[in-house]
Amino acid sequence: MDAALEAHNREAFRQAVGNTLERRLFYIPSFKIYRGVAGLYDYGPPGCAVKSNVLAFWRQHFVLQENMLEVDCPCVTPEIVLKASGHVDKFTDLMVKDEKTGTCYRADHLLKDYCKEKLEKDPNLSAEKAAELRHVLAVLDDLSAEELGAKIKEYGISAPDTKNHLSDPYPFNLMFQTSIGPSGLSPGYMRPETAQGIFVNFKDLYYYNGNKLPFAAAQIGQAFRNEISPRQGLLRVREFTLAEIEHFVDPEDKSHPKFSEVAELEFFMFPREDQVSGQQARRIPIGEAVSQGIVNNETLGYFIGRVYLFLTQLGIDKDRLRFRQHLANEMAHYAADCWDAEIECSYGWIECVGIADRSAYDLRAHTDKSGVALVAHEKFLEPKEVEKLVIAPVKKELGLAFKGDQRMVVEALEAMGEKEAMEMKAILEEKGQAEFHVCTLDKVVTIMKNMLSISKEKKKEHQRVFTPSVIEPSFGIGRIIYCLYEHSFYTRPSRDGDEQLNVFRFPPLIAPIKCTVFPLVQNEQYEEVARFIAKSLTAVGISYKIDITGTSIGKRYARTDELGVPFAITVDSKSSVTVRERDSKQQIRVSVDEVASVIREVTDGVSTWADVLWRYPTHSS
Amino acid sequence: MDAALEAHNREAFRQAVGNTLERRLFYIPSFKIYRGVAGLYDYGPPGCAVKSNVLAFWRQHFVLQENMLEVDCPCVTPEIVLKASGHVDKFTDLMVKDEKTGTCYRADHLLKDYCKEKLEKDPNLSAEKAAELRHVLAVLDDLSAEELGAKIKEYGISAPDTKNHLSDPYPFNLMFQTSIGPSGLSPGYMRPETAQGIFVNFKDLYYYNGNKLPFAAAQIGQAFRNEISPRQGLLRVREFTLAEIEHFVDPEDKSHPKFSEVAELEFFMFPREDQVSGQQARRIPIGEAVSQGIVNNETLGYFIGRVYLFLTQLGIDKDRLRFRQHLANEMAHYAADCWDAEIECSYGWIECVGIADRSAYDLRAHTDKSGVALVAHEKFLEPKEVEKLVIAPVKKELGLAFKGDQRMVVEALEAMGEKEAMEMKAILEEKGQAEFHVCTLDKVVTIMKNMLSISKEKKKEHQRVFTPSVIEPSFGIGRIIYCLYEHSFYTRPSRDGDEQLNVFRFPPLIAPIKCTVFPLVQNEQYEEVARFIAKSLTAVGISYKIDITGTSIGKRYARTDELGVPFAITVDSKSSVTVRERDSKQQIRVSVDEVASVIREVTDGVSTWADVLWRYPTHSS
Repeated sequence: MDAALEAHNREAFRQAVGNTLERRLFYIPSFKIYRGVAGLYDYGPPGCAVKSNVLAFWRQHFVLQENMLEVDCPCVTPEIVLKASGHVDKFTDLMVKDEKTGTCYRADHLLKDYCKEKLEKDPNLSAEKAAELRHVLAVLDDLSAEELGAKIKEYGISAPDTKNHLSDPYPFNLMFQTSIGPSGLSPGYMRPETAQGIFVNFKDLYYYNGNKLPFAAAQIGQAFRNEISPRQGLLRVREFTLAEIEHFVDPEDKSHPKFSEVAELEFFMFPREDQVSGQQARRIPIGEAVSQGIVNNETLGYFIGRVYLFLTQLGIDKDRLRFRQHLANEMAHYAADCWDAEIECSYGWIECVGIADRSAYDLRAHTDKSGVALVAHEKFLEPKEVEKLVIAPVKKELGLAFKGDQRMVVEALEAMGEKEAMEMKAILEEKGQAEFHVCTLDKVVTIMKNMLSISKEKKKEHQRVFTPSVIEPSFGIGRIIYCLYEHSFYTRPSRDGDEQLNVFRFPPLIAPIKCTVFPLVQNEQYEEVARFIAKSLTAVGISYKIDITGTSIGKRYARTDELGVPFAITVDSKSSVTVRERDSKQQIRVSVDEVASVIREVTDGVSTWADVLWRYPTHSS
Repeated sequence: MDAALEAHNREAFRQAVGNTLERRLFYIPSFKIYRGVAGLYDYGPPGCAVKSNVLAFWRQHFVLQENMLEVDCPCVTPEIVLKASGHVDKFTDLMVKDEKTGTCYRADHLLKDYCKEKLEKDPNLSAEKAAELRHVLAVLDDLSAEELGAKIKEYGISAPDTKNHLSDPYPFNLMFQTSIGPSGLSPGYMRPETAQGIFVNFKDLYYYNGNKLPFAAAQIGQAFRNEISPRQGLLRVREFTLAEIEHFVDPEDKSHPKFSEVAELEFFMFPREDQVSGQQARRIPIGEAVSQGIVNNETLGYFIGRVYLFLTQLGIDKDRLRFRQHLANEMAHYAADCWDAEIECSYGWIECVGIADRSAYDLRAHTDKSGVALVAHEKFLEPKEVEKLVIAPVKKELGLAFKGDQRMVVEALEAMGEKEAMEMKAILEEKGQAEFHVCTLDKVVTIMKNMLSISKEKKKEHQRVFTPSVIEPSFGIGRIIYCLYEHSFYTRPSRDGDEQLNVFRFPPLIAPIKCTVFPLVQNEQYEEVARFIAKSLTAVGISYKIDITGTSIGKRYARTDELGVPFAITVDSKSSVTVRERDSKQQIRVSVDEVASVIREVTDGVSTWADVLWRYPTHSS
């Protein structure tokens, strides 16, 4: 299709979905009566119900089925924790300011917009220039502040609204800052992710798990990101719900006992090499991806498989879902491997779940900063004999030689690595003395043979002490829900063909309301039956909506199709009712006494609609 | 009992509960490896599960059963919203500072501690002085900054740790402040309650409900309060989960259609008059409390009854629960009536749920600030004839007379109330002119008869426009959970009588883990059966814990009793297993195939343990 037409269709589709979502209060711009705040949205009643259902399913699919340890930590976080994690120093975006008005923009966004606009709309663009702009777009995320600034100057990019000059790019920290307690001396931040709350609790959680690996901890909660200028509606917001898993595993054994359960799943994967060589994503069985080394290890592969099942069971279209491996330049230096579950929607391919093997980075960072060892132990069945380097300074001699500097010298000697120590041992034995650089004193001292002994001793060890690796699947719940809205939305003509009606084809599991109850006409008898059914639905825990307005049944169906309600119960007699399925519009007749349990069956996933269709007489409307 | 002994027992009990809770990770002081932050706690795995279960039951009991509109709004809130609600100006505590170290204290806490200590420990206290101190304690919450400061000076109270001088008390705003966006020009706060998110959405929610009253909206979410110096452990924290309901109702009709369903419930109530006259709380049927006017209206009474059912079904002891009416001096000036559900624990009677009739205050405040009318409409079946005051200034004449002041005069004339206008009309008719004070000009002008006409006209009105009243039940989830821990905790001797074992008697609905699976001895056959049972439990959505350590069954029971796990499955054969109930220690034998569904039955509340006890052979351990 022509690119411009495609873009137009995408935009029109997005607007149709967005209008329906906003009109039916799936979401509401927060604080709307005060003209709102960019990047903050409320979930209105049906949106809130969808979110609850997604989170309940997430708990069932991950926490319960995998016996994870779920925790719930505060959003307010003291600075030291986020210093250790690196967020205080590095959780930034590059910003430019309109030099006259002070309005702030993300520097990369302005450059991206410029390149895209040129490429799409400038008929006189040379092939050479076009190639350059495409290259800029490709490396955009890697540009430093200086490089971004230089490009902005070179292309003469100015402030979008005023055309004023822009400042040089500089880093803006994306955390909401606050102050804990009344003194003003304890800076804090609203957490940018939930993961740190789990890492700092590693020691307790490991103990709770009987000091055994592997185990996973999980957390659902709010996270905050003070975006410079939020765009992309519900996809880039300043406050959002994350659901994160930290799976702790022995770095020497990343196998997974249940990997065989997912190994045959086949779905779109987009390995690093294929991206670099310009190929498309392709369907690969996850078992193959692991055995071929495309995915680093079984545990990572297991979670990729479980994420695939989670998303498709929610209603995400499997043909618009891919797992894309991070390119070398996207990945943190410590990460062993990283895959994003990306979902295609009208905004393009959107990262919705990140699944990363973060190695030992996080636990080590908090060990270093807090001084509390976040490590695991492997007890050997039999003690193992190991050779250990033993550096024994003779303090008396060192004291005589170095006086006040003694402590520094001792510490530096003790800190020598194996190679350095063995070299010194050889020199001391050969020459009787050795030159030694004490970095904390910043000077070279002479060490005599009688000042220390260096040896290798055989020791029996009863256990191995190590820092576990972390495999982290991290879910952006709001993004998943938005993509689900787009994938679930369709229109169909009304019965008379006069208008297009909107439908969300949510699976019953996720639908905000499971069924509606309509008395066919306004009369006391039917309304009494409707109330009886409502009570029985409540008793079995099914959410419903009753509509006793006199509007035509067709209109009432249309209203609830637009909310994605999968089943409608029309009360058209005192003894039995008509149940209609949303997408097929098929209808069956069920007795008043049975109807609540039938609805429960098809919404709990015990039966499908096809199953019950055979058991009851059908009804033509 | 002797007061000191009682206090000691209370303290010992609190410590026993607290030790168990912390050792078994029901909660963890947040950021513990960094020495924590006062007033911030994590829910560890069992605590997090209890919280999830409490919230799921809350949703079932309130949102689903009452068809409430649940919403989910951000925590980050722009200043204007909290200006309108009054929080920016009034959400404060009075603080004093240690004049040398700068350490901050709550002024009322220091005064309270002083009075209590004197009363408890000073043997030479005169009867007169004792009465004075008791009076100070009684009126503590009403003291102004000046009064508090005067008392602190009078009693010579100094900083508790250093004995340094204290500053005068001054208000400290308890909201965590932050800044929205990069400009630094948009102050924001972390919300101190979830309610405001509902109020600002009233218009949309009313529309969603078909423009009909009454309806209720609900929200579960985090709220924040930057306490000056948090005390009372889990009861006074800086971040907590609230579950709030805003029930919007016609102020002229606060009846409730389902009131009869709760009217006969009888529980401890503590009306204002009884408190003032020094009586005790007494059991009153809620129907009687409403009909006698003790509780202001049916809707408030209905929610009090529903809250009673909610709390007691969670496991709160009904004899340590009371509904206490606010005294006149505790209640906001706009509130029509207010009751707190207070639960007794080792800290005394703790406010856990507030149930207030806030009248039209909140919606009016946001209407005034935003300019958006948050009102409801009652359409009359037939138009009603009403008399309306019409004030029609004759602008030409007024312009000639008052020139530049004309606008002010016109506005002042139009703003006259009915009484004032009718008096002016009489004077104008009698004397042809009248003196009129224009407050915006701060002068008296002379109005001539030809400058305006005042009349009463009959008009047909088709609807009544009014601001709904709000009835707000607001639940402090963390406080309820803490009290539940205390009410559920007991100890009993181990089998050999050597030690006291801890038990939490959580109802199955709330228990963090529903059952444990123990192979009696470590062998492959039993472990296979255990895995089979584990799978069937997962399939029916039951959380379990498997314990394959070789520890004695008695020890394994003790471990899980301490987590409040209600049922234990011991695998002691390949075909059937022993199921043991926590509190009675009764045991039955159930086949391996049936056991998951039996556990589901007793945890879902379909059957009680007594029900299943008759159906299966009992087993003596």
